[in-house]
Amino acid sequence: ERIQVPLQADGQAAVHPACASLPDRQCHHPLANITENARLARCENTIKERFDEIVPVLKDVAALSGLRDFTEQANRLAEQRLGHVFPTAVLENSWIRGVNIPMLYSSSVFAALVAGVEQFSQRIHQEQADGQSLDALLVDCGFHAVNVSACADGRLKGLFPYILRLPASNLLRRSAFAGTLFDVESDILDWQAAELRRFREGYPSTSDSGTRYLKVAVYHGSSLDPTHQGCAAHHSNEKVAMEAALERLNQFRQGIENAFCCGASTDILLIGLDTDTDAIRIHVPDSRGDLSLFRFVDNAEIYKNTLGMNADQARLAIYEAIENASDVGGWGQGEGKPHDGMRRLIANLLINNLSQIEYVAENYGGWYPDKGHGERFISIGDGFQELQVRNLAYFARLDTVEEGAADLDVGVKIFRHLNVEQGLPIPMAIHYYYDANVPGHKERVIAKLQRVSGAIRVRYAELLSAGMLFLHGSIQNHQLGSPLEEVSLP
Amino acid sequence: ERIQVPLQADGQAAVHPACASLPDRQCHHPLANITENARLARCENTIKERFDEIVPVLKDVAALSGLRDFTEQANRLAEQRLGHVFPTAVLENSWIRGVNIPMLYSSSVFAALVAGVEQFSQRIHQEQADGQSLDALLVDCGFHAVNVSACADGRLKGLFPYILRLPASNLLRRSAFAGTLFDVESDILDWQAAELRRFREGYPSTSDSGTRYLKVAVYHGSSLDPTHQGCAAHHSNEKVAMEAALERLNQFRQGIENAFCCGASTDILLIGLDTDTDAIRIHVPDSRGDLSLFRFVDNAEIYKNTLGMNADQARLAIYEAIENASDVGGWGQGEGKPHDGMRRLIANLLINNLSQIEYVAENYGGWYPDKGHGERFISIGDGFQELQVRNLAYFARLDTVEEGAADLDVGVKIFRHLNVEQGLPIPMAIHYYYDANVPGHKERVIAKLQRVSGAIRVRYAELLSAGMLFLHGSIQNHQLGSPLEEVSLP
Ligand SMILES: [Zn+2]
Ligand SMILES: [Zn+2]
Ligand SMILES: [Zn+2]
Ligand SMILES: [Zn+2]
Repeated sequence: ERIQVPLQADGQAAVHPACASLPDRQCHHPLANITENARLARCENTIKERFDEIVPVLKDVAALSGLRDFTEQANRLAEQRLGHVFPTAVLENSWIRGVNIPMLYSSSVFAALVAGVEQFSQRIHQEQADGQSLDALLVDCGFHAVNVSACADGRLKGLFPYILRLPASNLLRRSAFAGTLFDVESDILDWQAAELRRFREGYPSTSDSGTRYLKVAVYHGSSLDPTHQGCAAHHSNEKVAMEAALERLNQFRQGIENAFCCGASTDILLIGLDTDTDAIRIHVPDSRGDLSLFRFVDNAEIYKNTLGMNADQARLAIYEAIENASDVGGWGQGEGKPHDGMRRLIANLLINNLSQIEYVAENYGGWYPDKGHGERFISIGDGFQELQVRNLAYFARLDTVEEGAADLDVGVKIFRHLNVEQGLPIPMAIHYYYDANVPGHKERVIAKLQRVSGAIRVRYAELLSAGMLFLHGSIQNHQLGSPLEEVSLP
Repeated sequence: ERIQVPLQADGQAAVHPACASLPDRQCHHPLANITENARLARCENTIKERFDEIVPVLKDVAALSGLRDFTEQANRLAEQRLGHVFPTAVLENSWIRGVNIPMLYSSSVFAALVAGVEQFSQRIHQEQADGQSLDALLVDCGFHAVNVSACADGRLKGLFPYILRLPASNLLRRSAFAGTLFDVESDILDWQAAELRRFREGYPSTSDSGTRYLKVAVYHGSSLDPTHQGCAAHHSNEKVAMEAALERLNQFRQGIENAFCCGASTDILLIGLDTDTDAIRIHVPDSRGDLSLFRFVDNAEIYKNTLGMNADQARLAIYEAIENASDVGGWGQGEGKPHDGMRRLIANLLINNLSQIEYVAENYGGWYPDKGHGERFISIGDGFQELQVRNLAYFARLDTVEEGAADLDVGVKIFRHLNVEQGLPIPMAIHYYYDANVPGHKERVIAKLQRVSGAIRVRYAELLSAGMLFLHGSIQNHQLGSPLEEVSLP
């Protein structure tokens, strides 16, 4: 089929920033990982199919309504096309008030979620091996911990496995907040934990090895429609989004330098994402570790400029692009280049992201068709490690509704439009990790989950009583590959 | 005046457990610190007088109502007897609907609070010197950090300066939770911070020095009326209160041992308080650090048994009592004695508390007349370091109303009885510390304070609109002696 070239905000047909020959001809970059792209496409498809089959199946189920063997026929459809049966009670009561589609819908969404987690927890051994080589790379680049905060926007949900190609690892922490407004105090605690581990266990590097803690913030914008499809928390103003993320980074770094003695210092890094093409830009620190909004490398440009080269040439050109960024004058002027390890890390992230640019080109023609929101459910709490796929979930990282109310409200607003206006309810999955090593922690996390669920019920009482909000609770031991444990919400 | 001997629950006149000659004759223990007791009495009196003068003054003010020069006369009274004038607008509107006593009451409570903080922040240098000698003692006893959690009950508000005689110190952390149900996860973070400081700064002891982190939990009961005036969170069942505190202690200790490698170990200590006499009991750990509900030393008994001795003999007898506790059989049986430093710390706490037992005898005849609740305001957030006086405040340590709702509701219930039933409003002071070293922290703490205040207004909307709830917001840099900064609550 012919690829549709999207129009820009000004009405002109867009030109793809990395592969200008689109839609006529695909580009093939020498550094793109074709096998991994194929695996990720299968992964994205299976996960999304589980969700996207639900509505068509339910339409067919609705058409069966009234048949004598309705329950059997409905369950046969469900088993064949969704991989699970419906809750019996719901089907059997259908003759009274008709099929309760909203309830079947949300139970199917939660079943898809559970099945998705189950499926991808089986990749655990591969994931662990990948994580170990990431750990080795990070230490090699001079980092003993990397803490990445991104925006809660569903379009960034694939940030780690897709956009940056970073597997789960012992040295990598992830979090998401609306507008990338991450929690500085909690990150300072995380810094302390990482430093202590180095001192006590010599892991992953000894305390005298000179490695650094790296804090990364990821903001986003839209190249096709910058003033409407950017970061909602910053009113689609990319400059404001950048500044907000950079301000938090500086507060974090300065806070540690001020509050801890003996030369406590950290590295910071700022990354921008174009949610239409998944191309990133990386702001290059100077020799003092300082960042500028105006000093960065643009990976779409790198892709384009290195297309005709062989792999070695391309790699070299990427290092050169990073060096050139450091020489920029004017507003972006800094003091020299960052340290070697930082340049290597940046190069690695750029190379990883080249594959993703090509992924979006091959699977979507260069630009995602869902340039706006298209999330399947709202994810509350710690989020699901196994379900990191673009637009699969709107993710609100929160411990209390009181603190996370703004993030939650944004999610509910999105889903009023996506689901409620279509007559479908909002599925909300609350999920927390616990540490099985700490006695009583599991019980306390269950209590917390039930408290959060209670507060959500109070906040959205109207949606709830209208049958337009369904909640699902689950917990998981924090060790990679642990099974999902469902928690009943009284 | 003649001291009233209280009746026990069974109707019999009580016999004081430490000084049996009461009410006829005061006891004088050789180890009681008479000068410090006198200073503390002055301190308690000035702070409480500021609060307790408010109602009598307001009664007089009410009687002035209607006079031509009402505003001047009311303010003269206020200045003379409360040390501050009333808010002008409130006085000047009095001719319309009468004097707004609830509003004058709460503004006076908050003024008393501000003045109390101001007054005691001037003792800062003495407090710092005391804190340094406590730090030295702790390190000498083998502890590099001591983290004490008590019940939020207002009768424990004087725990540190009065009952245990522990000044603010760098190595001492304090927290309060209804029923002593402290937050294990947050204490594990605190443990990490303390360990890191040792490794990075060699403070207060180097990492190879073998010192320990000590977690202490304080439960409470009532000797006069054990089944009614004990810990409300545990339905005045002292055994349940003890068990709950001990369970958390064990979870904390076990959690660290399990979750951290390389022999991460901590010490734990359990202390019981009789809120009628302020006498403590200390549960003595065995050689493995394990505690038992049935192995403890009772300080009222120690006071009584060592009354006739000289100071040296008494000190020796206390060490013997601790040793004897370790030899107890039956349910309290343990494996040998705790380490030397632990025994020295226990002895120090017991000796400190002897002064407090005598303090209560001299100032209140042995038993507090307010054996139940008599708090003057509800303290929310971090609490005021400078205002640690028995029954001055009901204290709810919380970061969100959602998590702290149960503790808050208990406080509001107490104050419905103490104030609202008398026609007086509930004064609630929200107070948080911030770290001036971390950029933006002050602003974030102000935002948090305003968020909490908003959630309180929602939860107690009825009280608020009835004019029966008044809020006050303030923050302070966490450095000892920093001024109180009032925060307006929109
Ligand atoms: Zn537009
Ligand atoms: Zn965003
Ligand atoms: Zn009673
Ligand atoms: Zn209590």
